[in-house]
Amino acid sequence: MKDFIDSRAYSRQELLDIVSLSLAIKRAIKQGYYPPLMKDMTLGMIFQQSSTRTRVSFETAMSQMGGHAQYLGPGMIQLGGHETIEDTGRVLSRLVDVVMARVITHDTVIRLARSCSVPVINGMSDFNHPTQELGDICTMVEHLPRGKKLQDCKVVFVGDATQVCASLGFICTKLGMHFVQYGPATHQLNKGHRQIMQENCEVSGGSFEISDKRDCVRDADFIYTDVWYGLYENEMPKEERVKVFADYQVNRDLMQLGNLGCKFMHCLPATRGEDVTDEVADSEASLCWDQAENRLTAMRGLLVYLTHNRRRPTELQLAAAKESLDAAMCRIFCEK
Amino acid sequence: MKDFIDSRAYSRQELLDIVSLSLAIKRAIKQGYYPPLMKDMTLGMIFQQSSTRTRVSFETAMSQMGGHAQYLGPGMIQLGGHETIEDTGRVLSRLVDVVMARVITHDTVIRLARSCSVPVINGMSDFNHPTQELGDICTMVEHLPRGKKLQDCKVVFVGDATQVCASLGFICTKLGMHFVQYGPATHQLNKGHRQIMQENCEVSGGSFEISDKRDCVRDADFIYTDVWYGLYENEMPKEERVKVFADYQVNRDLMQLGNLGCKFMHCLPATRGEDVTDEVADSEASLCWDQAENRLTAMRGLLVYLTHNRRRPTELQLAAAKESLDAAMCRIFCEK
Amino acid sequence: MKDFIDSRAYSRQELLDIVSLSLAIKRAIKQGYYPPLMKDMTLGMIFQQSSTRTRVSFETAMSQMGGHAQYLGPGMIQLGGHETIEDTGRVLSRLVDVVMARVITHDTVIRLARSCSVPVINGMSDFNHPTQELGDICTMVEHLPRGKKLQDCKVVFVGDATQVCASLGFICTKLGMHFVQYGPATHQLNKGHRQIMQENCEVSGGSFEISDKRDCVRDADFIYTDVWYGLYENEMPKEERVKVFADYQVNRDLMQLGNLGCKFMHCLPATRGEDVTDEVADSEASLCWDQAENRLTAMRGLLVYLTHNRRRPTELQLAAAKESLDAAMCRIFCEK
Repeated sequence: MKDFIDSRAYSRQELLDIVSLSLAIKRAIKQGYYPPLMKDMTLGMIFQQSSTRTRVSFETAMSQMGGHAQYLGPGMIQLGGHETIEDTGRVLSRLVDVVMARVITHDTVIRLARSCSVPVINGMSDFNHPTQELGDICTMVEHLPRGKKLQDCKVVFVGDATQVCASLGFICTKLGMHFVQYGPATHQLNKGHRQIMQENCEVSGGSFEISDKRDCVRDADFIYTDVWYGLYENEMPKEERVKVFADYQVNRDLMQLGNLGCKFMHCLPATRGEDVTDEVADSEASLCWDQAENRLTAMRGLLVYLTHNRRRPTELQLAAAKESLDAAMCRIFCEK
Repeated sequence: MKDFIDSRAYSRQELLDIVSLSLAIKRAIKQGYYPPLMKDMTLGMIFQQSSTRTRVSFETAMSQMGGHAQYLGPGMIQLGGHETIEDTGRVLSRLVDVVMARVITHDTVIRLARSCSVPVINGMSDFNHPTQELGDICTMVEHLPRGKKLQDCKVVFVGDATQVCASLGFICTKLGMHFVQYGPATHQLNKGHRQIMQENCEVSGGSFEISDKRDCVRDADFIYTDVWYGLYENEMPKEERVKVFADYQVNRDLMQLGNLGCKFMHCLPATRGEDVTDEVADSEASLCWDQAENRLTAMRGLLVYLTHNRRRPTELQLAAAKESLDAAMCRIFCEK
Repeated sequence: MKDFIDSRAYSRQELLDIVSLSLAIKRAIKQGYYPPLMKDMTLGMIFQQSSTRTRVSFETAMSQMGGHAQYLGPGMIQLGGHETIEDTGRVLSRLVDVVMARVITHDTVIRLARSCSVPVINGMSDFNHPTQELGDICTMVEHLPRGKKLQDCKVVFVGDATQVCASLGFICTKLGMHFVQYGPATHQLNKGHRQIMQENCEVSGGSFEISDKRDCVRDADFIYTDVWYGLYENEMPKEERVKVFADYQVNRDLMQLGNLGCKFMHCLPATRGEDVTDEVADSEASLCWDQAENRLTAMRGLLVYLTHNRRRPTELQLAAAKESLDAAMCRIFCEK
């Protein structure tokens, strides 16, 4: 796999490998060792929409590991204007080592990946948010309920069927976990999502459930939510959304339906007082700041995973290349 | 002190230490030694308004010392939109090592600092401009009148009571200098400013004066000015400002009121022909280009000062962390 | 020569030296050796207009060689607003080591270069595009027709007299090549361009021709084109441009007028179906992706060429500077 567009393209073991790698690099950095695993490499980060967490995480990940990330924000680079996406992809492949794109329509990142000869990472589309998936699994691994393995856990997403909801469903079912979306009938994961989760479960032994019955939250190990206002459609007006999602706020009552020690998760930004109460967000049970940190954790692992196969010169080859360049420079500069 | 929001929070000795450190790093770099004092560290730079000097200085400071600065410009990151400032602060604290913010209202940078667990630097607000203060003291130290110490110097700010004017008053009185604002009655430092300077003087033995009488400029060692058009309010129309500030242009006549060898200072940008004449700005007495360079000088010192206490691993710890990561990577990559 | 604003200021040998240096660095990097030739240096990149290739190339060039590039995009820095261009130039010279500017009017980059004490590179103006020139010569050198030298080659630019057309004419005539613009009478290089090319040819032995007769394409070694819609004037509406340039599309028919093995070049972006057909752009004869890569190639060489004369400290000087800084830091931090 050259690209990371959709976790479906990866096996369960491959995804767990990325998570292990991510957590190993995190440990090293916590101990003060910044591994130069992206040395000399450049990441081109295309953002068709602005972003805080994804952008800062990728840029920090690259510089902590000796590489560099370029921010190509809205209006700084065209994707599909005068130049076709395919031509832009071919050009970028000559100028950077990895491409990351946050796109408006999923098809854009697919076309970009197809035309790039370097790895392309999906930094969120209107369909999914796969780097969030990896980070969230890192967070769950770090906070597994005592005595449980990942596949023993029940993860309940509460609220709107956002890309984060879909992505959480994809990765949980891929890894053999039990996934639930508790959301209003008008805002539930659709047929396409269900089919993907179904296929995942057949391989992994996981399961999923989508329901507007509060009972489905019972025994959750992790309760997860996201904003109510919609990210890709026109923003739903506050009045309306508060009506639609009234029963779906993550508050003390809802948290108490989960297992003892149930954790709260949120991809952020949160609209405090809407999707989550301050009490829950700021409680001991809240993992949302760890999740934010683990965006960075997962991106470091993913970047290393996608590029570790690159050709590395031997010491001898390096010395020969240096000598040859020094000689060429001397021909130009020394004789003058 | 974790943050650098206001020089009031620092003692005179601490401020002089930052200045010494800044000048020591400057000397090293002039000699060709770029100290890797920010190695592996990331600075998040939030700009709610655009900036030339502050932005370029911070970004250069970080890369010259082995670190990296991320530009989070207007529209690239939200501060107080859907997400509270406090939540953004908590998230950034997990993703970067230092935060710098140029904000529209001072309260924003205060709230940010309170919520961040990493150091926060005020890159200018509607109240003050403390990194400018540090740079200006570096410049004055480099250009002290023969035989004088800092506390023997008289510094006269001419014109509008901008943040730079206020900040200059704060630092000069803090360091025991004599500070004057020579400006029209309608545009003088207010009660709040005066109280801060008063408190500073009581500790330091410095003094200050605010006046629209030209005589107050006499015996100045440094004459300083800033633009007339206002930076934070609606820009004052040219016609009006030229009328209000007519007597406050820094020109040959005004410079001659100062001591022999009196220096001219300007935080820039200058509006030549308004706040300063070409003759003065481009004269031997002008320090304004040195001041621009010393923005960089001071930021290097400040960044090192705020982070020098961070935990540094021993060689042994580094080797152990590396070995442990290598082993983890081998489990993932070698066996395949 | 401190700056790179116009290839006219460089001798033929100097330009060939930059090309050789560029290709030598490219070879080293292909072999896995990233030479730290820009270590500790900062490039300030001013863009008055957005850009993909120029921006990404310069930023990658700097980080691959151990330096850092700052993106100062439209609206992030003023050039000629409240502050004069000259003052901005003087300030930047204190804060960065090299400046690159993509400007709207050529005069801006000339004034900037005059006021900067550090090297200034023209990243395209309304007059020329000299870094494109260097990259294109790299590409031609890599793809010389068997048995020919550069000065034996015929280069035909087809279509509108864009800056890329002018720049191609300048460098080809400088290097003693035969240059042709095949374009409609209303869109041909003007008197000023012709005079420059004439002067070049008198020194180099090159030649040029400007014509709307299809016959002038015969025997081309390289056929080059650019977009039809204009980059600096108001964009020409599609209907109109398709009429004006109907005979100037680079398609199979036109390519067949060239020599056997004639190559196709395009600075990109291309408007497929207008200035070039898919068949040509995607053919074996197409060098346009190599050209994109050689933007990066040439920028690396140019950056090193313009800065190689900088003072480098000896090991002893470095050690002394480090010791002196360590002592200063100990005075501040150790005693507490």
